[in-house]
Amino acid sequence: MCSLPVPQEPLRRVAVTGGTHGNEMSGVYLVRQWLRTPVDLQRPSFSAVPVLANPAATAVCRRYIGRDLNRTFTSTFLTSKATPDELYEVTRARELNHLLGPKNSSQAFDFILDLHNTTANMGTCFILNVTDTFAMHLCHYLQLQNSEPPSRVLVIEASEDTTFSVDSVAKHGMTVELGPQPQGVLRADLFSRMRSLVASVLDFIELFNQGAAFPAFEMEVYKFLGCMDFPRSEDGDLAGMVHPQLQDQDFEPVQPGAPIFQLFSGEDMLYEGDSTMYPLFINEAAYYEKNIAFMKSKKLTVSIPALPVLTPNPTPLT
Amino acid sequence: MCSLPVPQEPLRRVAVTGGTHGNEMSGVYLVRQWLRTPVDLQRPSFSAVPVLANPAATAVCRRYIGRDLNRTFTSTFLTSKATPDELYEVTRARELNHLLGPKNSSQAFDFILDLHNTTANMGTCFILNVTDTFAMHLCHYLQLQNSEPPSRVLVIEASEDTTFSVDSVAKHGMTVELGPQPQGVLRADLFSRMRSLVASVLDFIELFNQGAAFPAFEMEVYKFLGCMDFPRSEDGDLAGMVHPQLQDQDFEPVQPGAPIFQLFSGEDMLYEGDSTMYPLFINEAAYYEKNIAFMKSKKLTVSIPALPVLTPNPTPLT
Repeated sequence: MCSLPVPQEPLRRVAVTGGTHGNEMSGVYLVRQWLRTPVDLQRPSFSAVPVLANPAATAVCRRYIGRDLNRTFTSTFLTSKATPDELYEVTRARELNHLLGPKNSSQAFDFILDLHNTTANMGTCFILNVTDTFAMHLCHYLQLQNSEPPSRVLVIEASEDTTFSVDSVAKHGMTVELGPQPQGVLRADLFSRMRSLVASVLDFIELFNQGAAFPAFEMEVYKFLGCMDFPRSEDGDLAGMVHPQLQDQDFEPVQPGAPIFQLFSGEDMLYEGDSTMYPLFINEAAYYEKNIAFMKSKKLTVSIPALPVLTPNPTPLT
Repeated sequence: MCSLPVPQEPLRRVAVTGGTHGNEMSGVYLVRQWLRTPVDLQRPSFSAVPVLANPAATAVCRRYIGRDLNRTFTSTFLTSKATPDELYEVTRARELNHLLGPKNSSQAFDFILDLHNTTANMGTCFILNVTDTFAMHLCHYLQLQNSEPPSRVLVIEASEDTTFSVDSVAKHGMTVELGPQPQGVLRADLFSRMRSLVASVLDFIELFNQGAAFPAFEMEVYKFLGCMDFPRSEDGDLAGMVHPQLQDQDFEPVQPGAPIFQLFSGEDMLYEGDSTMYPLFINEAAYYEKNIAFMKSKKLTVSIPALPVLTPNPTPLT
């Protein structure tokens, strides 16, 4: 896998998307606010565009109408011929690709920040492609700006062909996950935290655009390894639950032999891996249908090279 | 309002309903377990029947398909003529009334326990009609059996004509609410707590059936006063959120002048009542569509008379 090229020019075309999942309320209501008061997304060198990504799902407060929009930005969906009976989210992914892309083209937006909530006890989590050096610098900046509560970085390794999320349409991008928040609920504490994070993201882009130096650094990240399904009966039904000792312990190490599920029969199921694992998105409501009880990750330290310093644009004379 | 008559005979016909709301998972999975292993609901003098109340909504993990089933057990719905195009839950309410009622008849079940979850920080809460002396004794027993964490009692004053919930179909009944749990999530801790509570409910009925004495007592209860909507803009959209100082503070006193909402504009909205109020179901996900940000209650002490002691049935000779 090769790294994404780092920006050589200021980032002018930036979007902040919310409501990609229509029942994740922080992003839904922040985008609605920004559509009324766009000044909050303005900086001297650019203005970010607020986008309600899945308005139909948002209107009925569901994750999606036909299929998960945030799994629909693959080349296959984006380049297939439109048909009259296709699912709503396939049509909507093409619209967003038209608005913010096309994906993998020089016309695509410079940066998309996609706002999410999770019912899991994930705190603040940034999800991005480890090859996106620009976004890795952004995470580092956000961690320094907002150290309490801690924010963690989940990195995915995916080629351009296999990425499927909204933010993959832009040249650079990132997902923010805040939790725990039930679906369909708007908590003031998470709303404020997300608003503050978005302001910091825009501040970082502004600093980069103005020619600030961002030297190389090392960073602790969680690398996605795969998913773990619930225990199931022969007919596919749940046979047990996330173990009470695992519930809410996102990002905490799980050793081989630790209990991870409690069967309805009363027995414990133990983790059978051969090394320490860091669980993420534990017991996320939306993942039951995806056969995911939690995601597995490993913790590692990555070295990120410096960002090239842009020559600042002269302030226009007035 | 007159009191419900207390039982003069052992309670033989008892039902435990779960999945009345299809995305409240503790009751859904407990009922599924009991349908496989009914022995857990057996006691010497009776066997409780497990009922999955809204199987269609449960199958798609939504609160309801057409309308809220737990608001559909009024005389109007139950006695109106069936039509081919009526909403699923109206048909299902009639089916359940046929199975467990008819409501307000001598053929109705003796007791229905209806199992619910809430996204609000309600802990363990029993909801019942204050005139149901038998159910009030049951709550008192449950509080003594399960003192940690504390369980609270929410009483509603409603006449037989205006009750609308599943448990109102039986001669006596009660709703159990456990929270916080997001919709669509099964937490092992709440699952275990609910299973233990149901066992205690059945134990209480067994004790009553066997002729145990339940003397008069006094009890602290929260009496339902009404609902408070979110602040809204002229077009009906949310204009703010539950205030961070109110979030998760269910059952804690709110004084006049205390902040209850935080507007998106940044302003606080204060409580304008003229006396101490106890908020319940704060920021419950399912109540956004009902225009309820929280319920208001007052705390008071009620005196409950003794239950008449039944003459124990002789153990049948074998």
